[in-house]
Amino acid sequence: MFEINRPDVVAEVTACCDAYERALVANEVARLREFFWDSPHTIRFGATEQLYGAEEIAAFRQARVVDFSGRRVLRSSVLALGGDVAVAMLEFETTIAGRVRHGRQTQVWARIPEVGWRVTSAHVSRLTVSEMVEDYADAAASLVLAPLAPEHRPGVVQALGTAAALAAPLLAFELPADIEVAPVFTP
Amino acid sequence: MFEINRPDVVAEVTACCDAYERALVANEVARLREFFWDSPHTIRFGATEQLYGAEEIAAFRQARVVDFSGRRVLRSSVLALGGDVAVAMLEFETTIAGRVRHGRQTQVWARIPEVGWRVTSAHVSRLTVSEMVEDYADAAASLVLAPLAPEHRPGVVQALGTAAALAAPLLAFELPADIEVAPVFTP
Repeated sequence: MFEINRPDVVAEVTACCDAYERALVANEVARLREFFWDSPHTIRFGATEQLYGAEEIAAFRQARVVDFSGRRVLRSSVLALGGDVAVAMLEFETTIAGRVRHGRQTQVWARIPEVGWRVTSAHVSRLTVSEMVEDYADAAASLVLAPLAPEHRPGVVQALGTAAALAAPLLAFELPADIEVAPVFTP
Repeated sequence: MFEINRPDVVAEVTACCDAYERALVANEVARLREFFWDSPHTIRFGATEQLYGAEEIAAFRQARVVDFSGRRVLRSSVLALGGDVAVAMLEFETTIAGRVRHGRQTQVWARIPEVGWRVTSAHVSRLTVSEMVEDYADAAASLVLAPLAPEHRPGVVQALGTAAALAAPLLAFELPADIEVAPVFTP
């Protein structure tokens, strides 16, 4: 019988996720490779890349110099689907080039026969819109020589994000090249 | 026995994914809701948001006006893990505000008892770095009044991306505030 969130499965996969997080923060690249299923079926979508198969994933990890020591998990969850599969999803904060970034990570863990729990599928990403809005807020503040106080920054970023969301459908509207200019109203 | 890629499971979930894609492109918001598991455990990480539980997901979908008619799947894969779970991952292209964006989508499908196949976990994202590099390329070209020919744009974006990757570790290096300026060399 297919059971949701069997406590033993949730506990086992939560322990795997904790071990993965420790290895990541400690930058143990060789260890990270072991968590992933050694198979051509393994896929990892990273913030900037798509990797197909364990070999591509290992080669990418080997070539990359990244410091995850500042990574902090904000919220995490494990959903066990039956006795051999679980999905771990989490939000994290990390600092890239001196700026705090909000990221999300999804990992599917499967109990591979004769091997044990391994990540078969992973997807890591950053919040794209908010990231661009934050860059814009900082650039605009610096341009008008009015530095943003840290306590105001989240509010400014949120207001700009709302404005961008409102503007999106207008920007998406295509104007034909031969459109007529509206007459100027003179009262 | 836990089996990988059982053909009948792969076929069933592939059919589910195809139906989802058709509903998305046709903008059938109500239909989209039905594909997701109606549970507080369902999580969806979108390009700009994190949604916890079926209610948050449905409310977001209802409020959003997005045109997916231009969405095109570039590469897709289904990995069946046992008889009741499968992971579907795909890359797609979509046009936002007149610009082509590269996105990735991960969906975990589970055969929920008495309900059938449903998405329990989803993660959608865009490629962040390339997106910012593309914006930069266009802004820089417009600033120096040298518009990028469409056939050169991918190469320029790639070169800028490489430069950004090379610069990242330097930018990440923190200089202490009291560091001494190097003496100026006068020959």
